[in-house]
Amino acid sequence: MRGFARAEYEARLTKAQALMAAHDLSALLLTTEAEIRYFTGFLTRFWESPSRPWYLVLPVAGLPVAVIPSIGAALMAQTWVSDIRTWRAPVPLDDGVSLLTDTLNEVAGSGRIGLPSGPETFLRVPQGDWARITAALNGVVVSDGGITAQLRAVKSHAEIAKIETACAIAGRAFARVPQIARQGRALSAVFRDFQGLLLAEGADWVPYLAGGAGPDGYGDVISPASDRLLMQGDVLMLDTGAVFDGYFCDYDRNFAVGPASQLARDTHAHLIDAVDAAADIARPGTTAAELFHAMDKIVTGGAGGSDAGRLGHGLGMQLTEGLSLIVSDHTVLVPGMVITLEPGMDTGTDRIMVHEEDIAITETGCRFLSPRADRTLTQLS
Amino acid sequence: MRGFARAEYEARLTKAQALMAAHDLSALLLTTEAEIRYFTGFLTRFWESPSRPWYLVLPVAGLPVAVIPSIGAALMAQTWVSDIRTWRAPVPLDDGVSLLTDTLNEVAGSGRIGLPSGPETFLRVPQGDWARITAALNGVVVSDGGITAQLRAVKSHAEIAKIETACAIAGRAFARVPQIARQGRALSAVFRDFQGLLLAEGADWVPYLAGGAGPDGYGDVISPASDRLLMQGDVLMLDTGAVFDGYFCDYDRNFAVGPASQLARDTHAHLIDAVDAAADIARPGTTAAELFHAMDKIVTGGAGGSDAGRLGHGLGMQLTEGLSLIVSDHTVLVPGMVITLEPGMDTGTDRIMVHEEDIAITETGCRFLSPRADRTLTQLS
Repeated sequence: MRGFARAEYEARLTKAQALMAAHDLSALLLTTEAEIRYFTGFLTRFWESPSRPWYLVLPVAGLPVAVIPSIGAALMAQTWVSDIRTWRAPVPLDDGVSLLTDTLNEVAGSGRIGLPSGPETFLRVPQGDWARITAALNGVVVSDGGITAQLRAVKSHAEIAKIETACAIAGRAFARVPQIARQGRALSAVFRDFQGLLLAEGADWVPYLAGGAGPDGYGDVISPASDRLLMQGDVLMLDTGAVFDGYFCDYDRNFAVGPASQLARDTHAHLIDAVDAAADIARPGTTAAELFHAMDKIVTGGAGGSDAGRLGHGLGMQLTEGLSLIVSDHTVLVPGMVITLEPGMDTGTDRIMVHEEDIAITETGCRFLSPRADRTLTQLS
Repeated sequence: MRGFARAEYEARLTKAQALMAAHDLSALLLTTEAEIRYFTGFLTRFWESPSRPWYLVLPVAGLPVAVIPSIGAALMAQTWVSDIRTWRAPVPLDDGVSLLTDTLNEVAGSGRIGLPSGPETFLRVPQGDWARITAALNGVVVSDGGITAQLRAVKSHAEIAKIETACAIAGRAFARVPQIARQGRALSAVFRDFQGLLLAEGADWVPYLAGGAGPDGYGDVISPASDRLLMQGDVLMLDTGAVFDGYFCDYDRNFAVGPASQLARDTHAHLIDAVDAAADIARPGTTAAELFHAMDKIVTGGAGGSDAGRLGHGLGMQLTEGLSLIVSDHTVLVPGMVITLEPGMDTGTDRIMVHEEDIAITETGCRFLSPRADRTLTQLS
């Protein structure tokens, strides 16, 4: 099924409004893709264009108000939102500033207006416009206290089903990598073909693909593809965030080009062991930091991390969202959280191997959403 | 060729520093993908993750300073930037805040720090972090006066060559649409396959695909694909922003499913005429508003626009950037600007047709970067 039932959006709004009341907020102001989509279902790739601001106002009581460019009116009208106020953006002199301030003054009066202000949030509004908006408000803008992030961190069954579908699509594409990757092929060609496989297997689009290849490992995990040819002795890694109906998977697979070295095979087995160690303790009540330590013990002997910065993270409407598997994140796991386990190990000077799987926290433990990789490294010809 | 010669980045920096001096700025602070890539060449899809802030500081004299998460150090070291300062993000308690403020205080002292603040810009930093940063600065943050946008609006020959490559890739994919789109196929299947064609023809990735299909037109131009089957009498439109080496094309093509109606054929011919009317006057000295009026006269009889908000826009490192073809944009065209011409016409209640081409402004006129569409609507079986 595409989208969600109206009840899903009503439940999100009801929870948000209870938290808004607890934080003494008269309204929430949202400006980014994921935040606006979470409360409306407004799904479009048009966010790729930075030219127009988009606003959603959630009152502490009542229904959402969309304050958006007229080019989005037809699509927003297909969502459950009925109060849609538009202007013919872009109009640099008043690009929704008056319409938004009028709406906020009407909805929030002189009350407190919550704006997402914590980690991973930003204000998708030009600074010049923002100064004019705040100057014209009767109310005052404050942090939303993390309400939006807190709600998004715990997924419904319907949301988890979409992430699991995205994971299954990537799983089928990963299984076909031997068809497209072999000695003598350029990494850039493999990247191009792998995106094609993801689409062929059912991805709506492929916002993220990274990876690398080199003798027993790669230099980093965020680089685009080079034209370097795959060589015997390389370890090839592909890490994808493919999207199904607005939800991401995020996991990778490693492959040996020709027979793998003992080092590559051992490293891969250790990475799988690290994932298993974290999955073994992943249940309600465990903390993000405890998942980190379970993996860090295996991959560094307990050194406390690496330059990657973390060993996994939350996942959902964005490639990464929510908690981080780091020493200082003491978030307590609850059912409905979706998390990547992403341990990495050094395999030489400036060389690493990284493995990643996606899990959902259940009532009693966790469930793998990605089809688990074998401990044995897959060999390509 | 991938990337740019070092001289290209040096030229960008030199121009920026001259403008910074004229605006009495001690430094520029940049936080978004396109702005940081413009001055460094740092190209990665990792921006899809919102979890880590990234900073680039350009001093009014001297070389750029990158203040970035350690996960990006290896990739940034491959660019021309040598002063790379990293921290192990994410660290919610101090996610680069100290490192950035120390750097800004060192580079800018008590001077003025320019931040992009105009249309299409935003601050990709959590509001909470930003409050801590500004509180710890010795200098003062002000608008950059549009320096960054102004520089990016005029492309070098090397930049235009990349956009032209992206346009040629899309042109070859559009030519193959009859292979994937026909009566009885779902629009969602066509979207999926068309992304595959773009990759097969050489796109690095496909950040944007929108479109629609319906009798003699479609409801809007920003919706994702539905599972509706193509029917005889439909007009199918596909609008893509495919990327080659970090630069976008952005244009569309319309197709008739079975024999086109007189209305669809006439509308398509008018849209081509509107593009031609704009291209005929597109040269240095013409304004964005004049291009708008040349097209608006044909598509609305001079009514002054529609809900799309504009009839074209600048194009480059982002799907849309720079000027807007609207009544109130009096930007004067100069050689090196790259612009889309994107007229639309109503074809019925809540139905439109839109056509789009990409041009570059030359010394004497303009040059089509997209392979121009024929006046006759292409018919699918």
